[in-house]
Amino acid sequence: MTHEIAVIPGDGIGQEVTPAAVEVLEALDIDFEFTEADAGDAVLEKTGEALPQETYDLAASADATLFGAAGETAADVILPLRDAVDSFVNIRPAKAYPGIDAVRPETDLVFLRENTEGVYSGLEDRLTQDVSTLTRVVTETASRDLAEFACDYVSEADEHDGFSIVHKANVMRETDGLFRDTIKSVADEEGVETDEVLMDAFATRVCLDPEQFDVIVCPNLAGDVLSDLAAGLVGGLGLLPSANVGPDRALFEPVHGTAPDIAGEGVANPAATIISAAMLLEYLGYDAESEAVHEAVEATLEEGPRTADLGGDASTEDVTNAVIDRL
Amino acid sequence: MTHEIAVIPGDGIGQEVTPAAVEVLEALDIDFEFTEADAGDAVLEKTGEALPQETYDLAASADATLFGAAGETAADVILPLRDAVDSFVNIRPAKAYPGIDAVRPETDLVFLRENTEGVYSGLEDRLTQDVSTLTRVVTETASRDLAEFACDYVSEADEHDGFSIVHKANVMRETDGLFRDTIKSVADEEGVETDEVLMDAFATRVCLDPEQFDVIVCPNLAGDVLSDLAAGLVGGLGLLPSANVGPDRALFEPVHGTAPDIAGEGVANPAATIISAAMLLEYLGYDAESEAVHEAVEATLEEGPRTADLGGDASTEDVTNAVIDRL
Ligand SMILES: CC(C)[C@H](C(=O)O)[C@@H](O)C(=O)O
Ligand SMILES: CC(C)[C@H](C(=O)O)[C@@H](O)C(=O)O
Repeated sequence: MTHEIAVIPGDGIGQEVTPAAVEVLEALDIDFEFTEADAGDAVLEKTGEALPQETYDLAASADATLFGAAGETAADVILPLRDAVDSFVNIRPAKAYPGIDAVRPETDLVFLRENTEGVYSGLEDRLTQDVSTLTRVVTETASRDLAEFACDYVSEADEHDGFSIVHKANVMRETDGLFRDTIKSVADEEGVETDEVLMDAFATRVCLDPEQFDVIVCPNLAGDVLSDLAAGLVGGLGLLPSANVGPDRALFEPVHGTAPDIAGEGVANPAATIISAAMLLEYLGYDAESEAVHEAVEATLEEGPRTADLGGDASTEDVTNAVIDRL
Repeated sequence: MTHEIAVIPGDGIGQEVTPAAVEVLEALDIDFEFTEADAGDAVLEKTGEALPQETYDLAASADATLFGAAGETAADVILPLRDAVDSFVNIRPAKAYPGIDAVRPETDLVFLRENTEGVYSGLEDRLTQDVSTLTRVVTETASRDLAEFACDYVSEADEHDGFSIVHKANVMRETDGLFRDTIKSVADEEGVETDEVLMDAFATRVCLDPEQFDVIVCPNLAGDVLSDLAAGLVGGLGLLPSANVGPDRALFEPVHGTAPDIAGEGVANPAATIISAAMLLEYLGYDAESEAVHEAVEATLEEGPRTADLGGDASTEDVTNAVIDRL
């Protein structure tokens, strides 16, 4: 069976790390068909559109998409792409790696972020010169989809006992109340343990002791900010992968940006994109291959070669080859 | 001139730390008239109201209010109290103290949080069984008031060069766009330097290197979450004060909660409330006295006696007396 993979490198180091991850996937004995497409600042400049219709359509029909990064146009690219794959959950692991400097080396978290609504509704108005509004939307349907995914997610792996619901229902009583109650009731039905933490309290507590948390289920913006906070605790965005999962397809992307300061020099760290490719493998059912890629990246992070962001002087290609050699 | 101070101890350790801060204020040669009032879980149980009308009225007429903490009813108490003093800005310093364990001991930040709108509008609806909404409101007026305050704030003290505007205008284009543009244009008019940071990027960057930030101006929920994140970096909520400032009056409160586990034992750390009282002194124009209280608290934190949360075995009274002795 052939798996159609859309490859959207985007801007900056996206052009370097995305092909690196594709090389790793090509080194495996799996029948992939890769199709590349444009998105981001460069294509906006050329064509007037940050996300050309054919790129959207490709992501909407491929089995999985690998995306690199976009510059100024990031929101105009990534939000529609999440929509193209009908993604209802954004999986964001934030894990410190041995040998990599981290504020909190014991951090090992997975955020399951609602990926369609909240303040990302796009419903904004300028009512008067003085007043602007945004309609924050929370539905039972989206909360239920997320909850069911979260219950499966923690049930499939022995290492997870349950999950924490992070919200701000003491202020957003109706909307985050609906989010919290729906998720809690699905988890109760499925016999999955949950606890609840207010979003602000979570921010304090995760700095003081990240080991008290494991899997975190939260609304869209909370997931955005709190997973980036966790990225700070593990030493930066450089190593963090993510998966935007929908019912029939999914999109994988490193959490980092385009790193314009080093773009074009062939020295970008491909680790986050290669780990995102490992998540893609798991998504398609290749658990052993996914595990092998994870292990090869971890060994490379620990033993080298390393790129400059981790204190080494290896190129993107050196690191990619080292990962492939370890498969 | 007599200053009327409303004192609202609230629940749990609020009952212990608030009188401690009042003792410190009484030790100064200033003409205060203190009036105590109830709020919180206990008064809800007794009277059916977490915030009795006379407490609201007292805060709305006093020159300044000192508030302790409230339990489950926190939102029902503190949000109306902020409204009672017509507070448009919440000042939240987050500073690590010498000798106190901190994840990031170099942290020294001040958050100026918009205190009236955003997702705190209270405008929520359950449209259908499936759909709930919240109207996030951002006005030019509130943004301008905050900006003018922020410009004065950084101009009054030599140590501040300007401020960072933290927002999420790449997603909340109209609302956070209005917030950002209004604040930037006021700062430009006043010749105050600003830079801009996305809320998620701020969360990462402040963990990696808090010294790159100083004064942060942000919307209501961003201020709530990011100041609590900073609290995590300095070692917890235990030492953080805050001031809710309005045009004619203000309300001062420690950022911590009611600490039910130690309430009633006389061992709560009064530092955050005493530092909040120091902010009250500054607000009323007693700069020298404010400075003296700050210094006395810092010396006590460094040299002891210390309460159990900081590894000591002193009582609330021991610490309060030590602060008063150092004035
Ligand atoms: C670029 C932006 C729209 C996006 C988001 O807010 O989701 C980014 O911060 C992310 O987390 O992938
Ligand atoms: C209790 C709650 C309503 C409040 C807030 O969200 O503002 C608290 O978290 C705070 O920051 O003072």
